[in-house]
Amino acid sequence: MKADAYRFDGKTSCDLSRLPTDAGTEKGKKAEYAEKTAANLKKMESLQEAFYADGREGMVILLQALDAAGKDGTIKHVMGGLNPEGVTVYNFKQPTKTELEHDYLWRVGRCLPPRGGISIFNRSYYEDVLVVQMHQLHKGYRMADRVLQESDREFFEKRYHQICHFEEYLYENSFRVVKIFLHLSKGEQKERFLARIDTPDKNWKFSAADITERARFDEYNQLYQKVINATASEHAPWYVLPADQKWYTRYLVSEIVVEALQKCAPSYPKVTDQVRAEMQRARVQLMAED
Amino acid sequence: MKADAYRFDGKTSCDLSRLPTDAGTEKGKKAEYAEKTAANLKKMESLQEAFYADGREGMVILLQALDAAGKDGTIKHVMGGLNPEGVTVYNFKQPTKTELEHDYLWRVGRCLPPRGGISIFNRSYYEDVLVVQMHQLHKGYRMADRVLQESDREFFEKRYHQICHFEEYLYENSFRVVKIFLHLSKGEQKERFLARIDTPDKNWKFSAADITERARFDEYNQLYQKVINATASEHAPWYVLPADQKWYTRYLVSEIVVEALQKCAPSYPKVTDQVRAEMQRARVQLMAED
Repeated sequence: MKADAYRFDGKTSCDLSRLPTDAGTEKGKKAEYAEKTAANLKKMESLQEAFYADGREGMVILLQALDAAGKDGTIKHVMGGLNPEGVTVYNFKQPTKTELEHDYLWRVGRCLPPRGGISIFNRSYYEDVLVVQMHQLHKGYRMADRVLQESDREFFEKRYHQICHFEEYLYENSFRVVKIFLHLSKGEQKERFLARIDTPDKNWKFSAADITERARFDEYNQLYQKVINATASEHAPWYVLPADQKWYTRYLVSEIVVEALQKCAPSYPKVTDQVRAEMQRARVQLMAED
Repeated sequence: MKADAYRFDGKTSCDLSRLPTDAGTEKGKKAEYAEKTAANLKKMESLQEAFYADGREGMVILLQALDAAGKDGTIKHVMGGLNPEGVTVYNFKQPTKTELEHDYLWRVGRCLPPRGGISIFNRSYYEDVLVVQMHQLHKGYRMADRVLQESDREFFEKRYHQICHFEEYLYENSFRVVKIFLHLSKGEQKERFLARIDTPDKNWKFSAADITERARFDEYNQLYQKVINATASEHAPWYVLPADQKWYTRYLVSEIVVEALQKCAPSYPKVTDQVRAEMQRARVQLMAED
């Protein structure tokens, strides 16, 4: 699978500066990939139907990225074809006051799917080691001295472990976590921001804060790299996908989702002889109606 | 503290068959202990007020026991004096169909307190390694083959680890978990069941299933012992309390809660000079009213 080249499961180290943000040699093949994506979406649709009926596994697909890397578009174009019964998108924005009074996974727990369900996280608990670390937000939290007196390093190392344990727990309880990082170049981000400024229908997506954050583009990538390396595992791998060409990103994401669903080998629940007999009696009864 | 003798934090092994179910040498001192309990309840009340105002730590106090060991009575008589604003009791009964479709900590997450709050769990996620293990309920769960194909031993060892990680996570995020096992003798259970059968106002508490479970009294104690030893830790200790004399149990629980709250060293949030100045202006304004 093409996406395997972008997969990190903890065996090899991820170096973002060496990983492509663009489609490389595939750049000229937009139409070809659009077709492949369409074929994948069809596969996804029938796989998800079986996955929902089966109900033995649940799945979290989470998307992380810098601004304008295409999280929303990917969700719309790749997940949009799925049956919304069984698929829910959760947007992890700035935590509310109530959420901040709780442990940081508290709001995540409420968004976990039942088995048979898929939760798509637009941003996620990874923000609690990303934006929180970058802006030192934890310093303003009301927590016990024993926690706040830790060095930043200790504090976030613990969070990495907590996240690893959390994802391991989910896997051991029949849930899979698929983690996608959209790897965007600084130049492409500039173009997309300009488009948001210049296109009236895109204005709403622009925020002045985006520019402030952009000033720390490289720092963010370094932090992402650290976080990815600390939390990539066999059962909850990271995919670091080139994001400069949306059509290529979407193709890769469709591959990843198809593969993740296939790994669950979803199958429709087997019907017992008893149920089969009941169905035959129901048929007779239905046919007897006038 | 008296209760220290019953504390297990993983350093020493717990052997239920050697631990008392009764008050031993204290047995004749009911009135004395009732007074001590009353004094503790007063302390608890003011500690909890500060704990709530402080909001730096949260607390889970969970009670586990065989039937008729006095969980409800302990909650009523020991926690009853606390301000219900900031204290919530959750009863973990048989999981619903929806709860079973989720990971077993899902329903627990919804019952976790905010910082400043106390959640009291009447039974808890420990049922997922107790009654579930005893009755092999997990065999009937809809989960991935990779999970269901594990041996019982593997399956529950993993759950012990998951629980340890969960409690560690809570501690690292400014929450404390206090775990209490009410250790009842088989003879006293018999007396209490008979009272439930013979006293009309207690009839509602009796269930025929209690007698079936009683047949496995010793097996349950063995399992409890295993679970306690697998999950006792410095930051989330177990207290194995004699439960044959309710007044003694209640005294011990009141000691434990007082100590747990004291460890958090709750203090009212400090007022800044700015706020103090604002308050003085407010005073002037209030006094100027006619």
